[in-house]
Amino acid sequence: MIGERPSRPGPSVETRIVSVESGVATSRFDRVATEEPLEIRLRAGGASRTVAITMRTPGNDFELAAGFLYNEGVLGGFAALRGMSYCLDGSIAEDQQYNVVNVDLAASELPALDALERHFTMTSACGVCGRAQLEALEQRGVTPLAGGPQIPAAILTELPESLRAAQGIFAKTGGLHAAGLFSPDGKLVALREDVGRHNALDKLVGWALMEQRLPLEGFVLVVSGRSSYEIVQKALVARIPIVCAVSAPSSLAVDVARRFGLTLVGFLRAQRFNIYAGDQRILPV
Amino acid sequence: MIGERPSRPGPSVETRIVSVESGVATSRFDRVATEEPLEIRLRAGGASRTVAITMRTPGNDFELAAGFLYNEGVLGGFAALRGMSYCLDGSIAEDQQYNVVNVDLAASELPALDALERHFTMTSACGVCGRAQLEALEQRGVTPLAGGPQIPAAILTELPESLRAAQGIFAKTGGLHAAGLFSPDGKLVALREDVGRHNALDKLVGWALMEQRLPLEGFVLVVSGRSSYEIVQKALVARIPIVCAVSAPSSLAVDVARRFGLTLVGFLRAQRFNIYAGDQRILPV
Repeated sequence: MIGERPSRPGPSVETRIVSVESGVATSRFDRVATEEPLEIRLRAGGASRTVAITMRTPGNDFELAAGFLYNEGVLGGFAALRGMSYCLDGSIAEDQQYNVVNVDLAASELPALDALERHFTMTSACGVCGRAQLEALEQRGVTPLAGGPQIPAAILTELPESLRAAQGIFAKTGGLHAAGLFSPDGKLVALREDVGRHNALDKLVGWALMEQRLPLEGFVLVVSGRSSYEIVQKALVARIPIVCAVSAPSSLAVDVARRFGLTLVGFLRAQRFNIYAGDQRILPV
Repeated sequence: MIGERPSRPGPSVETRIVSVESGVATSRFDRVATEEPLEIRLRAGGASRTVAITMRTPGNDFELAAGFLYNEGVLGGFAALRGMSYCLDGSIAEDQQYNVVNVDLAASELPALDALERHFTMTSACGVCGRAQLEALEQRGVTPLAGGPQIPAAILTELPESLRAAQGIFAKTGGLHAAGLFSPDGKLVALREDVGRHNALDKLVGWALMEQRLPLEGFVLVVSGRSSYEIVQKALVARIPIVCAVSAPSSLAVDVARRFGLTLVGFLRAQRFNIYAGDQRILPV
């Protein structure tokens, strides 16, 4: 998705970023971890069924499929496996072929999947690739963000410390993700914590909904961990124009941010950060 | 689950741990972040439907439900919401009542949920609480682990650095979780990376399956981040007796480890770590 990529996605992709350190902005290339969907299809006795779609980093995809199915009890061991293959038969678009793994079972028919169905999606989405995910957002009527606030770099670099200082449960357990909403002058407006990074953001957006403060067009989001597709997508739907993470973004997070006009900041620390998209909202000093 | 807990779960729970620092083991109390399932039920015009179950930290549950439904497009805004409540009507067990949120819509009937169904589980599991999750594992035939290797503390504290040194994609991107399998003498046997922590472990287990090395009873697992319910559950199914995380465990991860005889280590650093379960497999020096 980011720039040109080979038909078989690699574990990381190169992308142009703006690196800001002590008030000095430098444009350079950097690598981000690839995030793309993987669809796992079970096949036996001529029948075929999609049992899961997971966002993953390409590489060792057969292992991922085998390990997932083993954990779910679908695959009892090596002997239950007849073979695995990518979908290279031309029935799906080229850039998606390496995002679908067919798992051929030694059994003569598909196992009962009731237990699995309780846990996992049975999608028959038109395509599994990052591009399809972005198009699905557009089809939902999600439009690009324009305008929005600007925030000085000197204020931005103070936000992780403000977030950490306000994390009550983290202080007790060391074990929670946080999502914090800030005003462009650096004031913490709301903070939510959860073992799940996405839940912390859902709580924050739910707070805004119940306070009738949606859309959140004038605010800055800071998350404690990495920024994945889901984080950026949730921020976009809530119309938060600036998303900052203390750690790295994924490739698909960068793609969403660029396509929909969000500002995406990563590796936000006391003295430095990287801008992956929308640098017009960050003032260098 | 851990010890006695009030009927309404809090965001963290106190538990007894063994803290090891520079070869000295101390038994003390510590707090871990609570992880429990939350079931979100939509109600409108007399109809009711479960639309999602997510593992979360209790607290701000109405916000979590509202934010989740807003992001999915089910809840267009505050006006679409008639009210929210916990299930306190006695139809479900007391310790699960605060794990179910009813979302009452202003609309006269439930919305079409086709899009949501593609993404989320429609479970009608017998109960949503940590205890039910553990019982479900037992019903699947997963038995407790006994025996297994012992590992000296001095070797254990070297494993995170070995893991990090071997993380090829992380070095390039700073953005990947890792799951590493070690022998009890500290040798790295296999390493897998992914943007998703669970995927990294699935890849590792899938590797073992295809190498016909399952069950992994003689090995030690090290994961780069936190240990959640899912991480410990996947290790248990693969029969890995010792699970170590660089960061904190959740309450449900501790519960699973104790119930099924796993050794669970957290905050594994160069000089120190905490043992949350199964300390007989860790030699103090």
